[in-house]
Amino acid sequence: MTTPLDDHRRRLDTIDSQLLQLLSERNSLVGEVLETKLAAGLPVYAPEREQAKVEAFRNAATGHGLDPEWAEDFLRLVMSSSRERQSQANFPQCAGGPRTVLIVGGAGQLGQCYGRAFTASGHSVRILEPDGWEKVDELMTGVDAVIVAVPIRVTESVISQLGPHLAANTILADFTSHKTAPLKAMLQAHRGPVLGLHPMHGPDVANLSKQLVIACPGRQAKASSWLLDQFHLWGLRVQELDSAQHDRIMNQVQGLRHFLALLHGSFMRASDLAPKDILALSSPIYRAELMMTGRIFAQNAELYADIVFANADRRQLLLDFLAHHDQLATLIRNDDKAGFISEFEAIGEFFGDFAEQARTESGYLIHRLADRFA
Amino acid sequence: MTTPLDDHRRRLDTIDSQLLQLLSERNSLVGEVLETKLAAGLPVYAPEREQAKVEAFRNAATGHGLDPEWAEDFLRLVMSSSRERQSQANFPQCAGGPRTVLIVGGAGQLGQCYGRAFTASGHSVRILEPDGWEKVDELMTGVDAVIVAVPIRVTESVISQLGPHLAANTILADFTSHKTAPLKAMLQAHRGPVLGLHPMHGPDVANLSKQLVIACPGRQAKASSWLLDQFHLWGLRVQELDSAQHDRIMNQVQGLRHFLALLHGSFMRASDLAPKDILALSSPIYRAELMMTGRIFAQNAELYADIVFANADRRQLLLDFLAHHDQLATLIRNDDKAGFISEFEAIGEFFGDFAEQARTESGYLIHRLADRFA
Repeated sequence: MTTPLDDHRRRLDTIDSQLLQLLSERNSLVGEVLETKLAAGLPVYAPEREQAKVEAFRNAATGHGLDPEWAEDFLRLVMSSSRERQSQANFPQCAGGPRTVLIVGGAGQLGQCYGRAFTASGHSVRILEPDGWEKVDELMTGVDAVIVAVPIRVTESVISQLGPHLAANTILADFTSHKTAPLKAMLQAHRGPVLGLHPMHGPDVANLSKQLVIACPGRQAKASSWLLDQFHLWGLRVQELDSAQHDRIMNQVQGLRHFLALLHGSFMRASDLAPKDILALSSPIYRAELMMTGRIFAQNAELYADIVFANADRRQLLLDFLAHHDQLATLIRNDDKAGFISEFEAIGEFFGDFAEQARTESGYLIHRLADRFA
Repeated sequence: MTTPLDDHRRRLDTIDSQLLQLLSERNSLVGEVLETKLAAGLPVYAPEREQAKVEAFRNAATGHGLDPEWAEDFLRLVMSSSRERQSQANFPQCAGGPRTVLIVGGAGQLGQCYGRAFTASGHSVRILEPDGWEKVDELMTGVDAVIVAVPIRVTESVISQLGPHLAANTILADFTSHKTAPLKAMLQAHRGPVLGLHPMHGPDVANLSKQLVIACPGRQAKASSWLLDQFHLWGLRVQELDSAQHDRIMNQVQGLRHFLALLHGSFMRASDLAPKDILALSSPIYRAELMMTGRIFAQNAELYADIVFANADRRQLLLDFLAHHDQLATLIRNDDKAGFISEFEAIGEFFGDFAEQARTESGYLIHRLADRFA
């Protein structure tokens, strides 16, 4: 028995199969573009070209009666597919030939992630782990850069141990998520080029393209320029920032955020309200929140303890936050709706245009989540 | 001057133009499917068929050397495009012919959203706003269902005002975001069929397909079944739940969440840390958090005050939350990293498998956000 819908469904299946065929051809073509770029030593990620491409696609989509916002999502998703292919490809190498890089803590997840990237660009990578200190001078021979990628609680002691073994022209850099104290330790331990780095991404990214790294200047910036050039060639976005400003912001971005996740999870546990019971009743936005709290607890407790307890400033910020909470709760104690409204409006004014941007951007998130997981 | 890349780029442009052509054809085809379904009175959203389609597409993608996870994102995005088209289309009508529905507060955003849906399914929609009470008996004549969609602070008084005007066989329902008190008020005010409803979505959705509505049984469930059938035909997912359990969960999902957003925004303002200054330094996950806090402040202060101050239970929960915060902050005061780790691990155990699911799902979010906004 056939129905009028059967014919339509067959035609839909044909179109979907043609879409896949085109996507597959597109990916091969992008693979060829990558090879060509590599051969020419060109950067893999070209933001201006990407933006122009997006604009043209939006216009063409409008011509086909499609929503340009939707079309941009579509194109970016298509482009992300070919970006993920790049993880298997080689990456271009910075000018001046291959370097030798020692990654201290190179067997850790982030160390491995960058180790693979250096190797894929034809550099030599060595690793120093806690059991390798007896060979440290051998490992240091001819090294152009030493990157300290060890847990935050041992960063400073590792840096001071490294000091005596460093040649004067070797770059000393670190990957710690706070910057003032490690930078000070590096400047003390080493008289050559020093650079503080903070990769703002997890070690599980498919590749480094479009990820963000914060760079805090230490000493002899020119000597480290090849390292930052190499970062750019991997597609990383590098943002330069003073270490004190970095730490002030990171105390909020990292310390407060992770403490809040603990607080949220801990209160759910104290209330005996399991996430799975809430999930079936969640709007997409709350679902997203729950996922962002929950993800923390699939990870290493010690890692988060290190982040939250990173330093005395960060702990003080968390106590200031509690005091602020106590003060704001006066509105609740007094059933003071008018006070709530006036605080709400003051924040709205402080946030300015950002609130509207946040509404648009989170609206996008909500729709994608609803499509994918509802 | 041409380069080898120019040729590749031309071929990419050709492929992208073919993709658009196929998408446009696909949308027309889906439009025809919709018309056919409407003519046959079939539901617009068929979850089983969608799931089968996704499975087949994943397999076909794997055959083309594409990542099946990526392919599923792709197909769901393509399908969402045609779902958005449905907002302009008519919707099928539940069995038993057109009904007459009175929406109290029907000029509000949510009231309008459902008013459009009822109209699109061929039902008659009437609206009662505060200035219309003198005509209330006229508006009530021959009405099959009355839906109260007014601000939470006036829900109960509006319900008791409606009571004397309701015929015994008229369904009385409400859209309030807490349920026990309005349900009690409806059962007192009306002796006929009563149903508590809580649409778990904003009024700005393109259409109701795949959105969630919670239904709390009141009285004479059978009499309301046509209304829930109509919801299903719009593609809504309806979840039945006891009103006490609903309120317990919503105190956390809505009360706590919105208070936390205020707390976060208020602390940023007190710390003079503007969102735009943080944005450039945010990882995708923090960016998502910032967007979900910021979106609140583009909206109506009074609406959020009503949600947070909905009832005494909810305010008590927020004070319990402060007490919990104070207790947890002991870890910070005592620089007690070991205590943090042990609390973290206890939460991880309480969350169970959910933590891993959250990691996967939020990972998806992070990648989409990075593609779209980085």
